Amino acid sequence: TGQPLVTATQSGVNPDIHSERTSPSFPVERVTNLLDGGAELTATRRHVESIINSDSTFSQDDRYFLTRVEQYEGSVRRAVRLREKMKELGWADNGTEAMFAFRVLGADVAFGIHNGVFIPTIKELGIEAQIAKWVPLAQDLQIIGTYAQTELGHGTYLRGLETTVTFDPSNQEFVINMPRLSSIKWWPGDLGRSATHALVLAQLYTQGKCQGMHAFIVQIRSLVDHSSLPGVTVGDIGPKMNFDQVDNGFLILQNVHIPRENMLCRYSEVSPDGTYVKRGSDRINYFSMVLTRTRLLSAEIIPALAKACVIAIRYSVVRRQSKLKPGEMETKILDYQMQQQKLFPQLATVFAFHFMASSFEAFCNQVKVQIKSKGDFSSLPELHALSAGLKALLSDVCSAGVETCRRACGGHGYSLLSGLPSLYTRVAGSCTYEGENTVMQLQTARLIKNAGFQLQSLLQSGVEQYVAWDSTSILLAQAAIAHCQYTIVNNFVETMSRLQHEPEIQQVLQVLCDLYALSGILANAEEFLHDGYMTGHQLDLVTASQRDLLTCVRKDAVSLVDAFDYSDQQLHSAIGSYDGHAYQRLFEWAQKAPMNAKVPFALFLALSSCC
Amino acid sequence: TGQPLVTATQSGVNPDIHSERTSPSFPVERVTNLLDGGAELTATRRHVESIINSDSTFSQDDRYFLTRVEQYEGSVRRAVRLREKMKELGWADNGTEAMFAFRVLGADVAFGIHNGVFIPTIKELGIEAQIAKWVPLAQDLQIIGTYAQTELGHGTYLRGLETTVTFDPSNQEFVINMPRLSSIKWWPGDLGRSATHALVLAQLYTQGKCQGMHAFIVQIRSLVDHSSLPGVTVGDIGPKMNFDQVDNGFLILQNVHIPRENMLCRYSEVSPDGTYVKRGSDRINYFSMVLTRTRLLSAEIIPALAKACVIAIRYSVVRRQSKLKPGEMETKILDYQMQQQKLFPQLATVFAFHFMASSFEAFCNQVKVQIKSKGDFSSLPELHALSAGLKALLSDVCSAGVETCRRACGGHGYSLLSGLPSLYTRVAGSCTYEGENTVMQLQTARLIKNAGFQLQSLLQSGVEQYVAWDSTSILLAQAAIAHCQYTIVNNFVETMSRLQHEPEIQQVLQVLCDLYALSGILANAEEFLHDGYMTGHQLDLVTASQRDLLTCVRKDAVSLVDAFDYSDQQLHSAIGSYDGHAYQRLFEWAQKAPMNAKVPFALFLALSSCC
Repeated sequence: TGQPLVTATQSGVNPDIHSERTSPSFPVERVTNLLDGGAELTATRRHVESIINSDSTFSQDDRYFLTRVEQYEGSVRRAVRLREKMKELGWADNGTEAMFAFRVLGADVAFGIHNGVFIPTIKELGIEAQIAKWVPLAQDLQIIGTYAQTELGHGTYLRGLETTVTFDPSNQEFVINMPRLSSIKWWPGDLGRSATHALVLAQLYTQGKCQGMHAFIVQIRSLVDHSSLPGVTVGDIGPKMNFDQVDNGFLILQNVHIPRENMLCRYSEVSPDGTYVKRGSDRINYFSMVLTRTRLLSAEIIPALAKACVIAIRYSVVRRQSKLKPGEMETKILDYQMQQQKLFPQLATVFAFHFMASSFEAFCNQVKVQIKSKGDFSSLPELHALSAGLKALLSDVCSAGVETCRRACGGHGYSLLSGLPSLYTRVAGSCTYEGENTVMQLQTARLIKNAGFQLQSLLQSGVEQYVAWDSTSILLAQAAIAHCQYTIVNNFVETMSRLQHEPEIQQVLQVLCDLYALSGILANAEEFLHDGYMTGHQLDLVTASQRDLLTCVRKDAVSLVDAFDYSDQQLHSAIGSYDGHAYQRLFEWAQKAPMNAKVPFALFLALSSCC
Repeated sequence: TGQPLVTATQSGVNPDIHSERTSPSFPVERVTNLLDGGAELTATRRHVESIINSDSTFSQDDRYFLTRVEQYEGSVRRAVRLREKMKELGWADNGTEAMFAFRVLGADVAFGIHNGVFIPTIKELGIEAQIAKWVPLAQDLQIIGTYAQTELGHGTYLRGLETTVTFDPSNQEFVINMPRLSSIKWWPGDLGRSATHALVLAQLYTQGKCQGMHAFIVQIRSLVDHSSLPGVTVGDIGPKMNFDQVDNGFLILQNVHIPRENMLCRYSEVSPDGTYVKRGSDRINYFSMVLTRTRLLSAEIIPALAKACVIAIRYSVVRRQSKLKPGEMETKILDYQMQQQKLFPQLATVFAFHFMASSFEAFCNQVKVQIKSKGDFSSLPELHALSAGLKALLSDVCSAGVETCRRACGGHGYSLLSGLPSLYTRVAGSCTYEGENTVMQLQTARLIKNAGFQLQSLLQSGVEQYVAWDSTSILLAQAAIAHCQYTIVNNFVETMSRLQHEPEIQQVLQVLCDLYALSGILANAEEFLHDGYMTGHQLDLVTASQRDLLTCVRKDAVSLVDAFDYSDQQLHSAIGSYDGHAYQRLFEWAQKAPMNAKVPFALFLALSSCC
């Protein structure tokens, strides 16, 4: 019956992708350095990645075949292993190596909320004694913390949160309660199975008065046997569109008592007699929110689109379909204009967003200095508005872009093995968490409208204006998007202008900059036409120019995505690997599916006997 | 420590959703009848549903918690049980009850390709003797068949398929081979674990000449022990974005011999000496393709958006968030204009598409009569073009609409328990299978362009024109979409005109018809502005009118989605059930997650000892 046709492993690089790399118009490695922030950082990143890639605990070869419980347990193993590695190699918690390690592993390592929110929030809102008590325990994983803010019935509208914390001066304790079903804490990461402690955000009542939302440290599970403590009901909220490995959880607290010292009290305190004391301004807290969102852009949202571009563009030069001219080989699908039209604007977007996120981080650091050194909070409103607007715009655009890339890969883009479905379902989550996008756009619009707007009022006022806001909200959201778009194009142009000493890079990036700008105009053509900023004829010229730019990008497309320098281990894609052996990997990976593990003989018997 | 706050089951209907149903402006049941095609069909559908819902084999209470293997096995159990039920109750294979049963169970019952493609194709392309031999075996599940057309390297471009079937007159057999890795059959449903037989589409070679693609019946697994036969390598292709329960498979055939009789030979045959004989035209085959696509619209694509609307609109009247006026209760999120702007155009779209699909089915039946009675094929090109265009447009719009509904439900829309992620990942598949959408749009455009276009040339020519087609493909795709949009609006208006005897229904549907038309203009405003068909000022009037229509839809929104008459068992949604107890169901369903089944004590010990 002949030899199987797929025994021999194809070695080397698929000639169809090799030919794409023979004469890039620019030095690929230098663009990688530019994206990393310098050659040294590229070297450090690769060093960190090589350590992770060579440790089997971090291997995710089986990621598409695991149950949720298996994925969760794997993520915990990775988190513990990473902590060990960091100790062993002397990587500081806030050092460059740790930053790259967390970025490479992303949400696939457990305790993201513990490391990224629980610990930092204690540092921000706690006094020295609280930081000294809790942070070392948390950093050594002696305790695992979560951040319990959202409830079944309330997300972004913080004033609506229902969990109450009432101070009882008779025993110097706070008593925590949830009055209704809708008050159950819902969604916090690391809560479902891991957390021993929760940072509970709740309405503080003392001396019969509500003082608004404050943060409290509450132990929820035993440190001896991990069972939930009296008054505590805790568990996992069930499967989600992605983040299977994260134990997003629910938490019910009924008459749970905690000592007075467990209220984080850098900015406000309840004194022993129950008097509420406010000290200083907690405006600095908004800075944390801004930083969290910014990290999300660089660590999750933009990389999702970048990886999707790598996969889709590499696949599009090894996939041949139909013929442009008779007698020739079938055509690489990347040679079709419709495929270029789908993919290249996404590629340009990655660069535009990357440079924007870099500039924004620099702006954040500048504001941080202003605040810390001079107590100057004047840039905070702009920072807050821009972070909300960018988060909303970038997560929307990147989600849509990833899905465009996925669909451009046809049937194989629907296979989990392509890596593309997971990229979509993961980045789609970012449109909701850390602030639902519609709400984010409105925040930007509000601030656009009134630069002198005081930040506190975001939470504390706004009620009276709400009716008016609602009826004009659609226009306001559009204005916010336009403002952000303008900022991004402007920033791309400025980034270009600083690359005069690297003319080849400047040239190829200029093409992408133009493509991004023109694609933005075409995507919003209605608004340009509406008030006569452009005529139909001018728009046709834009369309024609955009088409020319697609042709320019074509020859460098593979080199441009190579420059992102994602290892195959980071892409998790059978069709997007560096060597271009898409079909072989699809075939090899499919063999590993549990569906192929057992022959359904019993099933067959059941079938043949039933009818 | 007090009583748990969620022990008591909330009974009755949530007052927030009850109040929405007290005074609909139209008779809800009559709209249900209209959608079903008459009161009798409503009754039959409910009868079928009640039988299915009362049989525990069909229960899917645990659907969000199962592994792929468990889901697959459940779908097989359901398929066998359904076959038993049909025999027991005397439901004919092509009867109304069976149609409703398959529609209710959808892809959750196995053997969809076996029932929907394998059997019908044998009936279409086989001669009487072949039909008599194979169809009864297949209908009784004595054999399970798949339809093996697409290959690892080829999807829609049928002429590129590489599997070969060579006739050997010396022993009156066909010999099947796959020359390359890219020739492996990939994606066929029911193939991975179930199929005993495959309808293999392959290039026929006889007397040294290629005669193009033909269909052959090939046994691939033993009927005794279900093992794969010599020369056959078969398995599952691994996990996908959805359709976990379907065993999409791969198939390698190497020197597999089948008898001459296994070529389906109604339209062409290989005679014993190897002479290729063509008889009659197989144009009628295109009719099957058209019917498959049409069924997809009514059975999968439109219901996905309809269900998403039910879930999102019901949830939006029980979810309260923030306040429009101080001192009042928090506002139902459906009272916000931005939420209406997201959801109501989707609702209007469901009606527009439903009426379009109904009319299209009627048109199909008319053409069928023309062909069968008079041999008149003149309407086939228009039918084929319209089916391709509608499939592309409706699957794109419904996918985007489902995702809009999902995001409009905020965080809970990201939970699988909401039902919305699965609706999206499933309908998103329909943008690729049964013809990739870009290709579909181009097919419509091509036919628009030339009504006298001969259908065969779709497969056999087109090569020379391809370069020109590619460079104008973007414009052509737009033209195809515009043509379909126009047809849909026109059809909605005509449907309205036939409802003069039901003024209340006509009135509420008129609002939806207007909303659909205006939303279509706004979504494509660029094209109306571009050549001066509309001015910016006129567009502002459209925007204002659309806003007024949103307000009109608001009061009937819940009744309108109630009229779709989906049972809770069909919605599989914790947040979209008829009684509106969204939070309670989320909480109850989450408890059942396997993540909550075991306390991670070992894990806890591992953690506390490691650092």
